[in-house]
Amino acid sequence: MNYTSINDIDNLSQWVKDALKIKKKPLKNKKLGKNKTLGMLFFNPSLRTRLSTQKAALNLGMNVMVMNFTNEGWTLEFEDGAIMNKGASEHIKEAAAVISQYCDIIAIRAFAGLADKEKDNAETVLTGFQKYATVPIVNMEGCTGHPLQSLADAITMEEHKTKHRQKVVLTWAPHPRALPQAVANSFVEMMQLQTEMDFVITHPEGYELNPEITKDSKIEYDQNKAFENADFIYAKNWSNYKEYGQITNSDPNWTVSAEKMKLTNNAKFMHCLPVRRNMIVTDEVIDSENSIVIEQANNRTYSAQLVLQKILKNVK
Amino acid sequence: MNYTSINDIDNLSQWVKDALKIKKKPLKNKKLGKNKTLGMLFFNPSLRTRLSTQKAALNLGMNVMVMNFTNEGWTLEFEDGAIMNKGASEHIKEAAAVISQYCDIIAIRAFAGLADKEKDNAETVLTGFQKYATVPIVNMEGCTGHPLQSLADAITMEEHKTKHRQKVVLTWAPHPRALPQAVANSFVEMMQLQTEMDFVITHPEGYELNPEITKDSKIEYDQNKAFENADFIYAKNWSNYKEYGQITNSDPNWTVSAEKMKLTNNAKFMHCLPVRRNMIVTDEVIDSENSIVIEQANNRTYSAQLVLQKILKNVK
Amino acid sequence: MNYTSINDIDNLSQWVKDALKIKKKPLKNKKLGKNKTLGMLFFNPSLRTRLSTQKAALNLGMNVMVMNFTNEGWTLEFEDGAIMNKGASEHIKEAAAVISQYCDIIAIRAFAGLADKEKDNAETVLTGFQKYATVPIVNMEGCTGHPLQSLADAITMEEHKTKHRQKVVLTWAPHPRALPQAVANSFVEMMQLQTEMDFVITHPEGYELNPEITKDSKIEYDQNKAFENADFIYAKNWSNYKEYGQITNSDPNWTVSAEKMKLTNNAKFMHCLPVRRNMIVTDEVIDSENSIVIEQANNRTYSAQLVLQKILKNVK
Repeated sequence: MNYTSINDIDNLSQWVKDALKIKKKPLKNKKLGKNKTLGMLFFNPSLRTRLSTQKAALNLGMNVMVMNFTNEGWTLEFEDGAIMNKGASEHIKEAAAVISQYCDIIAIRAFAGLADKEKDNAETVLTGFQKYATVPIVNMEGCTGHPLQSLADAITMEEHKTKHRQKVVLTWAPHPRALPQAVANSFVEMMQLQTEMDFVITHPEGYELNPEITKDSKIEYDQNKAFENADFIYAKNWSNYKEYGQITNSDPNWTVSAEKMKLTNNAKFMHCLPVRRNMIVTDEVIDSENSIVIEQANNRTYSAQLVLQKILKNVK
Repeated sequence: MNYTSINDIDNLSQWVKDALKIKKKPLKNKKLGKNKTLGMLFFNPSLRTRLSTQKAALNLGMNVMVMNFTNEGWTLEFEDGAIMNKGASEHIKEAAAVISQYCDIIAIRAFAGLADKEKDNAETVLTGFQKYATVPIVNMEGCTGHPLQSLADAITMEEHKTKHRQKVVLTWAPHPRALPQAVANSFVEMMQLQTEMDFVITHPEGYELNPEITKDSKIEYDQNKAFENADFIYAKNWSNYKEYGQITNSDPNWTVSAEKMKLTNNAKFMHCLPVRRNMIVTDEVIDSENSIVIEQANNRTYSAQLVLQKILKNVK
Repeated sequence: MNYTSINDIDNLSQWVKDALKIKKKPLKNKKLGKNKTLGMLFFNPSLRTRLSTQKAALNLGMNVMVMNFTNEGWTLEFEDGAIMNKGASEHIKEAAAVISQYCDIIAIRAFAGLADKEKDNAETVLTGFQKYATVPIVNMEGCTGHPLQSLADAITMEEHKTKHRQKVVLTWAPHPRALPQAVANSFVEMMQLQTEMDFVITHPEGYELNPEITKDSKIEYDQNKAFENADFIYAKNWSNYKEYGQITNSDPNWTVSAEKMKLTNNAKFMHCLPVRRNMIVTDEVIDSENSIVIEQANNRTYSAQLVLQKILKNVK
């Protein structure tokens, strides 16, 4: 069993229930991971994912070996049949097979480069490890998805939902740097598994996500209209998918402000973090009682722990 | 309970006694830290602090998660109300609150930049974490203090003191690079808590430390005179505090030499390490039987373990 | 007891037997390393060594503290009597003695710089730690040897040998970058301890390894002739030892190809990894059933575990 995409979730509501049980007694399965080793490979920076996934593994009694691939290891080659006479020292075929000798589960973070859409969509690193590793793979954010985050988001919404059918809005917001679509993609895919929520995506025209991911999810280009009666506002920047990796809009009117939040049904504010204050969201909103971003981060531990726990039970 | 400054020590002689008890049986409290996690955040290089604090946590049965913030995490913003459209990806408000979700204690190293006295004195990183973290904070060397070091120094002096009232000298010595005042500051503050020792600071004129720290501690500009009858010589370089962060003196006559040590009462030689040999101190002195620098480093473990132990008992 | 060279093996066939026993029950000695700490110091990148040595220590119940010296610690000075007024912040004398306060075993990786033969042959880092540390030292690849690798190679050959007297060939192969001789050296030294194998080294003229290491080992300049009837082909690049650190040959005819493997007695293909595909060896050969490179990597764990186990038994 791998966990590389939201599509690996067979029953979202059951997973969320299971994660909330773990949250109540995080050390209940402390023996499950005994003498099992999680290898965490980072090709990019990480704070929440690094610490929460490690914490989840420790809660399960696992050993953890962390490796920052870019400065601690060798540059990898991913092309089949390559004549390796350039910069790359090791082929993914060997790297993945070798790490599988030492680890029972391999977790990987490898962001989109945003220079080559086709290459990013191919998820070279993640699929390379999936193909050549002989142990389960966990996605700690790839080029096109961040399923540990979106599972944590689902857990957080379950905890904060009110009685009626919830309206959830994913809103684009401006950011000074070009960011991947990964978090937004997985959030959309997770929302497509929600049966009792209404979901709307709002972003400037031209900022459509990959249509193969959004499918028939509702898109509303008028942010104000989207916010009306919303119960959850999930803010996130992403760079342009059509004009791939470009910043074609930086309109400050898209920043989530207190005024905009007034349009909602006293909505909770969500973001995966790290967040650019007063670009994505004003201080007033993120510092308000309705902000649940820290709880989202907290739930990263239980999201990761559920995934590791499922894999460990499967491995046994 | 935090440990960010020597001022957090309520009773130095009792702390030293407790630390020496830990040193005798370092594994006695192996269960105290069970399922507790220490997060160690480094904004600067570290050898002794990195390994001794980790070792202390392991002795207490804690889990340890180490993170080099500068290359593994995100650049932090510390200014309140900042419009985050520049380099910093994450605000200290979120970073500190988030890390508190995964760790029971957060230890932080963040050196002085030595470019802006006011900013350094504000201890931006350390106070940011103190303000926004929801778990105890330990200072692994900030801009203006290194209290784990000075506690280890107190332990070491207790072990090596002779019967009569001891004379302790903190002497400035030359160094090719501009260094923070942190170690010297905390040493001064620790010595101010000593009731049975005479303390003298010696340095070239103009190299006065922050007077709010030295208070009424005795300063003697004549190094030879200061060394007379000393029982402990503690050498340390620091850059100019008035002409902030500048090197205004590199006089090799201030190097601690065998000749100068002859002026003392067969004094022990101390330094926090790393030390520049033949700049701060000659090989002859640091390689002599009177040098206790390695024992100081050893006591870093028990200094950190005492602090973690006190916090853990408090947390419970 | 240190393990810094193949010469530290007193009885190779017994060590190999012991390692194979460990491989069958890797967790049998889980209590041996309890409350013991392995410090792993890296001056260079590492994948297999980093993870396998860590895994070995975990199998023995040890604590592990990993430190990347180059970016996490201080620059070291190795010269005796140096006036430390330049880049180096800490002398090996202090660094080694200090780390010995926190670790029960210190493992070190420090590659050859390939600029100064005499300096590389002096193994400055490794011998510095041996001289000034007060705990056992393990070589995780120095300038001139990689004895954990060669012990793993011996284990792997034991598992894959056929009934008759085996012929083992170490063959040079081309590589785009100048590489150290360390792996080849230790392999030669290990083969010199083999009593029931025939050993041949093959490389272009001029690429002779240090004659103090090869001693009377057989050298055959005709690669095809060397391959005849071989049971094991061990490929490895190294840079020129006479014209020290230079690449004086990049002849693609030395690449290990399927055609060349046909000259052998259905030989197993070996390499320490990372390997440059289609430079050192063609895809066809390394992807064939006769390739045992992943098993070599797997045996790194048991090679390291045997060494740590021997040291721990000795330390007690």
